[in-house]
Amino acid sequence: MARLNDNYLKLKAGYLFPEIGRRVKAFAEANPEAKVIRLGIGDVTRPLAPAVIKAFHQGIDDLAQDATFHGYGPEQGYEWLINTIIDRSYRLLGVDLKGSELFISDGSKCDTANILDIFDLGNRVAICDPVYPVYNDTNVMIGRSGEADDKGYYQGLVYMPCTAENGFTPAFPTERVDLIYLCSPNNPTGTVATKAQLQAWVDYARANDSIILFDAAYEAFITEPGIPHSIYELSGAKECAIEFRSFSKTAGFTGVRCGLTVVPEALMATTAGGERIALNRLWNRRQCTKFNGVSYPVQRAAAAVYSDEGWAQVMETIDFYMENARLIREGLTEAGITCFGGVNAPYIWLKTPGGMGSWEFFDKLLSECHVVGTPGSGFGPSGEGYFRLSAFGGRANVIEAISRFRAKWGR
Amino acid sequence: MARLNDNYLKLKAGYLFPEIGRRVKAFAEANPEAKVIRLGIGDVTRPLAPAVIKAFHQGIDDLAQDATFHGYGPEQGYEWLINTIIDRSYRLLGVDLKGSELFISDGSKCDTANILDIFDLGNRVAICDPVYPVYNDTNVMIGRSGEADDKGYYQGLVYMPCTAENGFTPAFPTERVDLIYLCSPNNPTGTVATKAQLQAWVDYARANDSIILFDAAYEAFITEPGIPHSIYELSGAKECAIEFRSFSKTAGFTGVRCGLTVVPEALMATTAGGERIALNRLWNRRQCTKFNGVSYPVQRAAAAVYSDEGWAQVMETIDFYMENARLIREGLTEAGITCFGGVNAPYIWLKTPGGMGSWEFFDKLLSECHVVGTPGSGFGPSGEGYFRLSAFGGRANVIEAISRFRAKWGR
Repeated sequence: MARLNDNYLKLKAGYLFPEIGRRVKAFAEANPEAKVIRLGIGDVTRPLAPAVIKAFHQGIDDLAQDATFHGYGPEQGYEWLINTIIDRSYRLLGVDLKGSELFISDGSKCDTANILDIFDLGNRVAICDPVYPVYNDTNVMIGRSGEADDKGYYQGLVYMPCTAENGFTPAFPTERVDLIYLCSPNNPTGTVATKAQLQAWVDYARANDSIILFDAAYEAFITEPGIPHSIYELSGAKECAIEFRSFSKTAGFTGVRCGLTVVPEALMATTAGGERIALNRLWNRRQCTKFNGVSYPVQRAAAAVYSDEGWAQVMETIDFYMENARLIREGLTEAGITCFGGVNAPYIWLKTPGGMGSWEFFDKLLSECHVVGTPGSGFGPSGEGYFRLSAFGGRANVIEAISRFRAKWGR
Repeated sequence: MARLNDNYLKLKAGYLFPEIGRRVKAFAEANPEAKVIRLGIGDVTRPLAPAVIKAFHQGIDDLAQDATFHGYGPEQGYEWLINTIIDRSYRLLGVDLKGSELFISDGSKCDTANILDIFDLGNRVAICDPVYPVYNDTNVMIGRSGEADDKGYYQGLVYMPCTAENGFTPAFPTERVDLIYLCSPNNPTGTVATKAQLQAWVDYARANDSIILFDAAYEAFITEPGIPHSIYELSGAKECAIEFRSFSKTAGFTGVRCGLTVVPEALMATTAGGERIALNRLWNRRQCTKFNGVSYPVQRAAAAVYSDEGWAQVMETIDFYMENARLIREGLTEAGITCFGGVNAPYIWLKTPGGMGSWEFFDKLLSECHVVGTPGSGFGPSGEGYFRLSAFGGRANVIEAISRFRAKWGR
């Protein structure tokens, strides 16, 4: 009989956000009068920028006419979008990329998962703890781990704890690893790597022949000068790093779906026989065979993000979210709750009051304050005792949520 | 050092269509005056239906307003789209599906590739020969095969030749297989499985505890009554088959990106320990973890395909393409060329005149007639000596291409 992939059965419980959804749904059904405020899942709430809407409509009008109809596009994305991103974003950071190094996709969740396709199963993988669950779960699903232990660590994966004790800066692994996931600005902790910290990782990766999988999905939320927006701002990164970016949070594309992955041509990995081969070639083959490109009107909309008008509008929305972040951070701090992040990222990572467990705090916050957040332990064992709030809500909801927090825990 | 997935290096040459693109580009650059007619890649050319365009625009307008904004949607697709497809398509075929059995995706190319994620690598796989290259290549890439032999067969995969000699109907494998890819109406041969033939496959799969991966991307092109549009029209298929469908050819969505996969809840596979588990659960987990749903406006556009107005418009375009198919089929037949398909599928599969090799004929057709088609051998060794023309061109181009054919080979 056909055999299923047993690795899937190693996964503990459902994926974090569906589990939150189930608990919120159950609470809302039992308490129909409660006004639940959702600061849990990192989903945007503000409409798309007018310039983006306009380009999106134009893209559709193109599909309505014989002369301008577009069928299959390049699997890698249209050149005009790729070149726009290179010119209007990477170049301003001092990063030169070739068009062939940048691949447009339907989101960085997919890409951070799919990138595993091009690597041998024998590679040793290091991830932060807590971490965006996709990095962990996809490695389990593909068969790179054993079973989870009681704490939730999967055998065979290398975890790098990030807690208040080490300033949320992971220490280098004590054993050799081949692939290292880094995310800055960080989801879930909202903290950010400095230039010096990221350079140290690049140097470490090069010294150890490791590859960094760098998730920069939140780079547009950096407000402080001098913080790297791209890993390629660091010397030597093109020889050791793949970078993922997303329009989801930058431009409110969570429901529109567009992201991108950079695989520099200088980035090599070895065959079983020891030959060094450019990974760009493998990723290109992967995308040509297993993917069919991003929706044409979506690519038109994405290109408009980088117009002068579009970028100004997009930044206005980001400023709005970051003002939410400031309000949450300061409000909770005044209520005596210890907070991290929220300065260069739309996430506030708080220590649960009174040392409560993360899910215990989730249930209490939901049932008593009708506020939804994300339990830190859902992101990994070292997230236990922490809790994530996102800054993507509406202003009135954010203010109301803070006042409920203060009424409950404030001094 | 990080190790790459060596299986990628087993793949012969590039994926078929990029290779064709390269040859056409080289010819066009060397012969800028030639008017090249492309009947090669199976890409649509007609604009989207007006009802689809309208719904697509409305979907974007929803994203422009606070009150109607949509962020992350369900990874499985919106219920309103899923239910529309069940009600307006499957129910009319006498097929009852639950909403939880149908998953919206960004295309069936992706899904037929990604479905391998949920199966154990040890499964034995049977594919037709010739075949849509994605089935073959993704199995090679995931490590289910050895090297290719001189003919192009990859060790470890089971090939089922489909040629004029067996009426393009594959014989059952002589060895046990776990997964069987079937595609009807067939790409590339343009032929179709009858109800009796498909029932025999379902019975075979059930008797042998195999799973059929059924690609129905071209079901909307069936013109003859009594031909199954879904494998679930056959008795017992829900216990042994996964079905893939696409909006790409049905509604001209090759550049818009939408497809769907049906994984019935009754479909089981076994764990290493012999436990039977529903594959629906695994596919759901796969999609929730590695995919983020289809663009919201695209799903709005897809739903409009099944409105009365939308369906009438979509069928008008399909009729247009199928008239092209008739013209090609009859024109080539009159020119003395043996043709198959083109009655229930938008592809005509012809025997190359004079027993030419497929690529030899490709180059000759391109250089002497300035017509692009697809070499049959690109779809597998048994496609050697055959050639695929697609019916997706404009009418004038189709007529011009036929006249060039007749001038060259006609009696």
